[in-house]
Amino acid sequence: MRDFKWSRGEKIAAQKAFDLALTREFEAVMTEAKRRAAQAKDIDDLWNLQGYLFRTRKEIENKFDYRYSVLIFVFARLIADGQLSEEELLGIGEDKLDAIRLILSR
Amino acid sequence: MRDFKWSRGEKIAAQKAFDLALTREFEAVMTEAKRRAAQAKDIDDLWNLQGYLFRTRKEIENKFDYRYSVLIFVFARLIADGQLSEEELLGIGEDKLDAIRLILSR
Repeated sequence: MRDFKWSRGEKIAAQKAFDLALTREFEAVMTEAKRRAAQAKDIDDLWNLQGYLFRTRKEIENKFDYRYSVLIFVFARLIADGQLSEEELLGIGEDKLDAIRLILSR
Repeated sequence: MRDFKWSRGEKIAAQKAFDLALTREFEAVMTEAKRRAAQAKDIDDLWNLQGYLFRTRKEIENKFDYRYSVLIFVFARLIADGQLSEEELLGIGEDKLDAIRLILSR
């Protein structure tokens, strides 16, 4: 996978798509954590909620890595996980979209 | 502090008081965690909830130590923290209650 050059406009589009996916992820975690807390019946349910939040935070930190050297892979994973659509990435160049499609097709 | 002998009846009373205080502690944590989750506005509120649950669990594990060698101190602390009353310990011997009062008076 070659090293892509990102224009100023592409960087803005990439940041926007990245933030969109991150906001969706946060909203999903908020919904799930609030549901778990509201339905908690005993203390073990709370300790499980603690573990869920701890693991989820680590996963988000690993997954949402905004370095241009890995961004193509990050976007491919977000699309594969249903957190971003290809349409939401249209502001980035066709060369990068092709690379993302290639990763997704493997 | 001398090493107390606990009769069978005293052990039953001690376990009952200990469990009562632990149940109260769990209920307080449940209430607080549910309140925090319900009022969470953003993801940082959830990460703070995770930290709260993590710390609280460790504190409970340290505080609720059911070894007869330390139980007098555990009960003294529970009374000092308002989680147990002296009346709820009446099934244990007067020698132990005196020791608890001595710790509390220091």
